[in-house]
Amino acid sequence: MYLTQGLHRALQQTPDLAATVYGDRIRTYKESAARVARLAGALRGLGVAEGDRVAMLSLNSDRYHEYLLAVWWLGGVVNPVNIRWSPAEIGYSLRESATTVLLVDDAFAGQVPALRSEAHQLATVIHCGDGPTPEQMLAYEELLAGADPVEDLRRGGDSLAGVFYTGGTTGLPKGVMLSHTNLMTSALGTTALGGLVLPGGRFLHAAPMFHLADLAAWTAQSLVGGTHIMIPAFDPLTVMAAVQKHQVTSTLLVPMMIQIMTDHPERTGYDLSSLINIAYGASTIPQAVLTRAMKAFPTARFAQAYAMTELAPVATLLTPEDHLTGGELLRSAGRAAPHCEIRVITPDGQPAPTGTIGEVTVRGDNVMLGYWNQPQETATALRDGWMHTGDSGYLDEHGYLYIVDRLKDMIVTGGENVYSAEVENTLAQHPAVASCAVIGVPDQQWGERVHAVIVLRPGTTTTAEEIRAHVKERIAGYKAPRTCEFVDTLPLSGAGKILKRELRKPHWQGADRQVG
Amino acid sequence: MYLTQGLHRALQQTPDLAATVYGDRIRTYKESAARVARLAGALRGLGVAEGDRVAMLSLNSDRYHEYLLAVWWLGGVVNPVNIRWSPAEIGYSLRESATTVLLVDDAFAGQVPALRSEAHQLATVIHCGDGPTPEQMLAYEELLAGADPVEDLRRGGDSLAGVFYTGGTTGLPKGVMLSHTNLMTSALGTTALGGLVLPGGRFLHAAPMFHLADLAAWTAQSLVGGTHIMIPAFDPLTVMAAVQKHQVTSTLLVPMMIQIMTDHPERTGYDLSSLINIAYGASTIPQAVLTRAMKAFPTARFAQAYAMTELAPVATLLTPEDHLTGGELLRSAGRAAPHCEIRVITPDGQPAPTGTIGEVTVRGDNVMLGYWNQPQETATALRDGWMHTGDSGYLDEHGYLYIVDRLKDMIVTGGENVYSAEVENTLAQHPAVASCAVIGVPDQQWGERVHAVIVLRPGTTTTAEEIRAHVKERIAGYKAPRTCEFVDTLPLSGAGKILKRELRKPHWQGADRQVG
Repeated sequence: MYLTQGLHRALQQTPDLAATVYGDRIRTYKESAARVARLAGALRGLGVAEGDRVAMLSLNSDRYHEYLLAVWWLGGVVNPVNIRWSPAEIGYSLRESATTVLLVDDAFAGQVPALRSEAHQLATVIHCGDGPTPEQMLAYEELLAGADPVEDLRRGGDSLAGVFYTGGTTGLPKGVMLSHTNLMTSALGTTALGGLVLPGGRFLHAAPMFHLADLAAWTAQSLVGGTHIMIPAFDPLTVMAAVQKHQVTSTLLVPMMIQIMTDHPERTGYDLSSLINIAYGASTIPQAVLTRAMKAFPTARFAQAYAMTELAPVATLLTPEDHLTGGELLRSAGRAAPHCEIRVITPDGQPAPTGTIGEVTVRGDNVMLGYWNQPQETATALRDGWMHTGDSGYLDEHGYLYIVDRLKDMIVTGGENVYSAEVENTLAQHPAVASCAVIGVPDQQWGERVHAVIVLRPGTTTTAEEIRAHVKERIAGYKAPRTCEFVDTLPLSGAGKILKRELRKPHWQGADRQVG
Repeated sequence: MYLTQGLHRALQQTPDLAATVYGDRIRTYKESAARVARLAGALRGLGVAEGDRVAMLSLNSDRYHEYLLAVWWLGGVVNPVNIRWSPAEIGYSLRESATTVLLVDDAFAGQVPALRSEAHQLATVIHCGDGPTPEQMLAYEELLAGADPVEDLRRGGDSLAGVFYTGGTTGLPKGVMLSHTNLMTSALGTTALGGLVLPGGRFLHAAPMFHLADLAAWTAQSLVGGTHIMIPAFDPLTVMAAVQKHQVTSTLLVPMMIQIMTDHPERTGYDLSSLINIAYGASTIPQAVLTRAMKAFPTARFAQAYAMTELAPVATLLTPEDHLTGGELLRSAGRAAPHCEIRVITPDGQPAPTGTIGEVTVRGDNVMLGYWNQPQETATALRDGWMHTGDSGYLDEHGYLYIVDRLKDMIVTGGENVYSAEVENTLAQHPAVASCAVIGVPDQQWGERVHAVIVLRPGTTTTAEEIRAHVKERIAGYKAPRTCEFVDTLPLSGAGKILKRELRKPHWQGADRQVG
């Protein structure tokens, strides 16, 4: 399997269909394929050989689509850069992966001098924005216009397709190496169960394209054919306008985006009835938010994936049918997708009994090749073909996986283990809570105490006392936040995950516990 | 990917669901998995090691399901035997593949002495029928009862999963070697486009399970979970009774079976409304029969696959949506499935222009590893990753493949090329024609002449003259059958293909042309 397969099929089956829509710029598959073949020729002319890494630091655009395909077309390796990272972090990842060519758009062109000084091997920077091309960069369209098309090498299978740097929120970034087979397997298996994309559908890329969550959806939509619609970045009104204008059928959002759209006062002013699929993942979603969202988007079928970069990325699926069942099932991450096996294991590596919390492990052709240049980390993560995710969870008697929390996120208070997700789910049921994060902070008496950071819904008020009472009514008293903090927004990673590290930092400064 | 993955998932997700239904014998996934693990243990006890071949010669049953899974569980290679073959042909395939263990049911136990004399290396024969176990055979249930379960080796990926002997109708059989990845890729890609199986559905195995067409559906249904219902062999009343009794949602039939069911006088006496998917393949279906079938089974969505053993087996799909479009599209074999690429090539190996007939070639992870012990044949079939199918066809501007005919089936009459399928499609539109086959027979004047063999629908009559006139009204005169023959039934292969070799034989005996 090779990631350009979908382009060849589309060229044969739907040459005149729009491949990409970005603002008013629409390109058919015939046009898009010709541009990909020329961009591949240009990159080869710049010295990019088979197996070489090419990075992109950009908001979403149709050129992201062309970049991915062109790099694979010439047998190269993509390195999509996390747009939220600091120049030091990005520089580290470019340096470590020996990336020599970088594409950068208008939003990030200003970082290039800093990146050049961090990563001296960076030989070529291509400006793929629509503004004027800065000095010492090549202009994307000129490069394309001057290049000859090349033939697709059809490099695929177990060969390296991308290095995806991850974990930047905790320690040094690690480059996750994914093969063509890894990415295609996840996409095929996810699509086989249904509910993610529609053959011939119109997919809106609102989540950042550098991230595996959106890239997984991109791959799936490319496999079954259809149109990719890009907006530069998530913004609730931009999303709603794009859905209405382009009759978007399918999209992928992170939970925070779903919450913002659901609670948006102008939502009902848009016709969003073309939406058939809303997929979400990247982090858990509080049940109360999901229930509101299902009411707010009644034509959409919701599907959740439990996913991580190392799994290319999908491991489990909570299908639209599962969502209609509702109730407790909405707290689940779903069941093993058709392409892989899931096991929850005890600390000694044995399968945990049903209902018992342990580490989630996954086996299948979607499991990464390993971490770039990190044999030790790779050996720790991959054992006997099983990826050890570091997430804790349990399986019920029907194989539904419940993610309890990231292992490192667990709070130990007065000798009791408290899983943040459980407390967050309970908080989210409170009518005044829009979004929240629960962390452990140092406490003289309890070692750690449960602390909640809360964003209130517009026009509501509440108190820490009321919040505590709400939680205590529903779950064990020791799980109730001893302290609460009310904020306007929560800090988010580029992938839309809440940056708990940022929330913990002020509390732990000077404390001797390692901040995870 | 490994072919036992679906069993592990089902054991985790639906342990109490019926895995197999055979007559009144129902086994849950929990029971079925335990039996598979014990059968694998028994086979290992008989000396079957990783990579060893184990054959089965049997009508359909729940034990076929257990056989497949148990052989894969212990890392072995299946060799499902064509039930229509002669002992000499079967003996050849067992000998060539060095198969030492054979499972045989009541229907074929009588052939064992002949097979033993053809294939001396055959060490063990296991009787898997429900009747008394013949001498010198082991009894399936006793073997199982006395064996200890073993762990699944999870052998998969590119390792050999099966040797599927094919081509017995033309020359010596060839063993098609398929890997786990080959079979899983076809199943995933086919399922991703939808219309073949239903997650959690009830699949009726009416087509022979030794054949890749049904095995492909078995693999797909196993991937998404559900129940396998087996009947020993196709019989229209047995199928209809099973659909009604077990609320069958999905099945795969060969065109001849669809025609027989559609035209069956007792069809309307059964409630067949549970049928959601009817897949067909293995040979082309006349448009007129298909149109009648879609009316006869109004709840069913029809999907066609262009498939061959060497492609594990699916290359193209004509989706349910395509079927609803109707018209000319019903003559098509559909478009490249998500897991592969299709190219039609000219004799010099270049891509043929749209609408131009050439040889169909296919590339993807579904393409076989090669022919067992036939490096020369393998090299001819597989070039640069492309499987050369030997079928001729053309692509239209939307990528729909039209199979014109097997290349070897083309009739050359008076210097003109006539493709049998075109004539057969035209004949099938005649109200009196139930099924038909068109062949070339030797002719003093024309070299070959077009000859039709026709089965009439009950209660109708017609004449060769009327048939000729019907064809001449619709397609070129030289394509009209110069001679017609009316018969009660057409000879069928085990896979339900019309055995044109049998039809040609009496005409070509003594002629110096090789009978293809």
